[in-house]
Amino acid sequence: MLKVSIAPDGKEYPLPSEEDAQKEREILKQITAEQKALGRKIVAVQGLGFVGCVMATVVADATDKDGNPFYFVHGHQRASQRSYWKVPVINSGIPPVNSSDPEVPAIFHRTVVEKKNFRATSEESVYGLVDIVVVDIQLDATKPAFGDAEKGYCDITAFREGIRTLGKHIQPECLVLVETTVPPGTCEKVVKPILEEEFTKRGIDIEKNPPLIAHSYERVMPGAHYVASIRDFWRVFSGVNPKSIELCREFLSHVLDVENYPLTQLDSTNASELAKTMENSYRAVNIALTLEWAKFAEQIGVDIFKVRDAIRKRKETHDNLLRPSLGVGGYCLTKDPVLANWAMKSLFGVEGSLDFAIKAVNTNDTMPLHTIDIVKSVYPDLKNLKIAVLGVSYLEDVGDTRHSPSKTLVEFLRKDLAIVKTHDPYVETWPEMEENHIQNDLNNVLPESDVVIFAVGHSQYRKLDPKYVVDLCKTKPLIVDCSNFLSDETINIYKDLGCKVRGVGKGHIVNEK
Amino acid sequence: MLKVSIAPDGKEYPLPSEEDAQKEREILKQITAEQKALGRKIVAVQGLGFVGCVMATVVADATDKDGNPFYFVHGHQRASQRSYWKVPVINSGIPPVNSSDPEVPAIFHRTVVEKKNFRATSEESVYGLVDIVVVDIQLDATKPAFGDAEKGYCDITAFREGIRTLGKHIQPECLVLVETTVPPGTCEKVVKPILEEEFTKRGIDIEKNPPLIAHSYERVMPGAHYVASIRDFWRVFSGVNPKSIELCREFLSHVLDVENYPLTQLDSTNASELAKTMENSYRAVNIALTLEWAKFAEQIGVDIFKVRDAIRKRKETHDNLLRPSLGVGGYCLTKDPVLANWAMKSLFGVEGSLDFAIKAVNTNDTMPLHTIDIVKSVYPDLKNLKIAVLGVSYLEDVGDTRHSPSKTLVEFLRKDLAIVKTHDPYVETWPEMEENHIQNDLNNVLPESDVVIFAVGHSQYRKLDPKYVVDLCKTKPLIVDCSNFLSDETINIYKDLGCKVRGVGKGHIVNEK
Repeated sequence: MLKVSIAPDGKEYPLPSEEDAQKEREILKQITAEQKALGRKIVAVQGLGFVGCVMATVVADATDKDGNPFYFVHGHQRASQRSYWKVPVINSGIPPVNSSDPEVPAIFHRTVVEKKNFRATSEESVYGLVDIVVVDIQLDATKPAFGDAEKGYCDITAFREGIRTLGKHIQPECLVLVETTVPPGTCEKVVKPILEEEFTKRGIDIEKNPPLIAHSYERVMPGAHYVASIRDFWRVFSGVNPKSIELCREFLSHVLDVENYPLTQLDSTNASELAKTMENSYRAVNIALTLEWAKFAEQIGVDIFKVRDAIRKRKETHDNLLRPSLGVGGYCLTKDPVLANWAMKSLFGVEGSLDFAIKAVNTNDTMPLHTIDIVKSVYPDLKNLKIAVLGVSYLEDVGDTRHSPSKTLVEFLRKDLAIVKTHDPYVETWPEMEENHIQNDLNNVLPESDVVIFAVGHSQYRKLDPKYVVDLCKTKPLIVDCSNFLSDETINIYKDLGCKVRGVGKGHIVNEK
Repeated sequence: MLKVSIAPDGKEYPLPSEEDAQKEREILKQITAEQKALGRKIVAVQGLGFVGCVMATVVADATDKDGNPFYFVHGHQRASQRSYWKVPVINSGIPPVNSSDPEVPAIFHRTVVEKKNFRATSEESVYGLVDIVVVDIQLDATKPAFGDAEKGYCDITAFREGIRTLGKHIQPECLVLVETTVPPGTCEKVVKPILEEEFTKRGIDIEKNPPLIAHSYERVMPGAHYVASIRDFWRVFSGVNPKSIELCREFLSHVLDVENYPLTQLDSTNASELAKTMENSYRAVNIALTLEWAKFAEQIGVDIFKVRDAIRKRKETHDNLLRPSLGVGGYCLTKDPVLANWAMKSLFGVEGSLDFAIKAVNTNDTMPLHTIDIVKSVYPDLKNLKIAVLGVSYLEDVGDTRHSPSKTLVEFLRKDLAIVKTHDPYVETWPEMEENHIQNDLNNVLPESDVVIFAVGHSQYRKLDPKYVVDLCKTKPLIVDCSNFLSDETINIYKDLGCKVRGVGKGHIVNEK
């Protein structure tokens, strides 16, 4: 039986046979030669995930002042059942990710179909043909116990394999630009030794040809400005030697809007890697501390969000203050502190720990339990309680469910034997959950609900008429606002309709009419 | 023997006798009547400390559009040996605080001598004559154990006495505006019951005349813009009832630059009090977390300050990120988290704790020990080591030594039997220290030093020529930069002169030439 890779839309793509691979290798050589003849440098992007696939289009889309592309881009994705489908999908000009940013489908069509300078492949020999590899391999942190991020670690096996593949194929003068968020020290302590080892095996003199390795981290934000968040934003970079730094600077200057967002060069890849993980740890701590104050505010009748607004009037010193909510999700804030904490001992062998950052991860990971406590303050026993959870993505008006706090919410509500229905206007399937079909119609979710939890502040929910919600429920449900999007006026309407209302950090609404 | 109060300049002022007090009461009545006849409202400021005395001048300095003062201000300071001297000093037109802000002496002279609408008194009957009392009583947190702020508490005895004094004297329609940073809940749970009790004793019907109480916190910064930081800055306020809110808004609108810095009204005094302590806790946490990353950076050869600059390019989301240093001093960040944490159980009887904020206080209080560890990384035994500590105030280019981290530094160095000399261009005496004379001349401090610690980044130190420093030492001292003010160039000059150089968060400078 042929192995197949199944795309999210259900379409099946057979994995390439050895014969297919043979053909592909010839095609790659031919295309590369043609593109070089056009004066273009050749780039490979390793890993066509959330960042890699869009980064590849941004690189392909970059042109000189006459409108000629600087680069031809090979996107490389291994021929795994899980991910191979991305290759044919991209090559048809379709993005392999969903996004609310209209620039995403546009830039895929433009580079794949119109300019024809971006093409995906699963053939790893492609790395032998290129001037630059941009590494966008996924690298996760593992947190073996809930709320115990101290025990978190980073399994770099797959990352090391990916780098070894490069070491086996790349030309000695090829720049390896690591864009993946990695534990500090990775370029110096992981990437460099592997490339040196593979170069040496291939008879390359690493004294004369030391591997060229740089690090520059993206600051991508899912949502309406996805492409711009990669291309038109501040970048930090460094390299392991002057040549790497020079090549990296040249590449980023071609690809990004460095006129409006000048590059920031740091002294070493250690520094650049540290910066990324510190940057996200700062945010993680910033959110975590607000939960304590939110709980205090709830107990003394204070609206923490109005307090936050008052504090944030102090621009430049206090306006980064974040807000409590259901919890913290996504790919970065949930793991980057763990990567950095793990690196201290595991890559550098030094003592110490990043206590604030790790404590923040624990607070943020367990934050959804506070919303359950809020429900329990009204319904101490959740057994058979009918609960509608509105919103399962990790961010407002985005369909991304990675590490969504709604997952923790739903799992723990079900542990307490509540009957939970889930809804999200942006999510069809919830890959992280066993029961993964998500309702997009409130008519299938709200009727008979005892509790309605506004878990995520999607615009659609903001617009809901309280009377519509309560009529649909046919109950007087407890309303729980996790995202501070019910105004005091709306809350009073719910109260007038006979509902109790509660909210994370909203101590001022506890008194019922 | 007459009791006297001794000013910082050594001048002695006898405390007022009963006869003096009698006369003063008559003077107060007469002045107040004259000022009322001019159409002015009468304000008392309770407590002429760091904030109160300048706030009093700002109130007195406020005028209507024709240049006529809105208010006459009585500044009240109890006739204690410790503080009475402020009354005659102020009444001579001289500020009782040192400041680098030239507006401080100017505004005292203008209001006391020229406009003659600010006058200090130690006579508490003054409160019976006024329309508004601004409460600026000092309120400290007590931290009984070093690095263990969980055990911190707030002794509100003196504050309660101050409020009781008001309750005994004020007219029922007088607004009590609390400006002191207080534990959340203080206006509702401390001030209100005391005023109600005293009003009732005086036969005032508190149903008809509920006490008028508001809270609005200052955001004063010592330094060159001291006066402006009170007058021309964002203010948050609230009151215990609508009348209090209205009077408070009117008062603040007269006194502050609300055109450029519109007032922020919160729902309750609980909210306003919470905002102040949360605001400073945010800063405290923000500093504390940087120490962990600084230590990591030091171990892996990274300059944390360049990393910080790279991160702070992200305006509005990341530019509040603070920096590690010798430690955290001053009156606010060191105590406000403790006030809030204490209030939870002690004023509201609720469970919970502000773990991040309290952990931050502990990290910040003990941060100077890290600088000692840096010294010990070069000189493991401090005994008889000659150490020059440059800077004893808590802030750059300010002479304020309150809760200065240099105190912890010097004390712990001396515990390890180092021979410590201290220098500060802005400080003559160090009231918090037993041996409190501070050198202002580097000639008396640097010679023979084995270690020079730049504890505070005063401008004078920034300008120092490395050769001058090394020549004066007549040694090749270890240079320790706690404030990131030695540039890489200056560091290299010190290295060329044969010195080792170290710095908080400056991992990149460890390698000696």
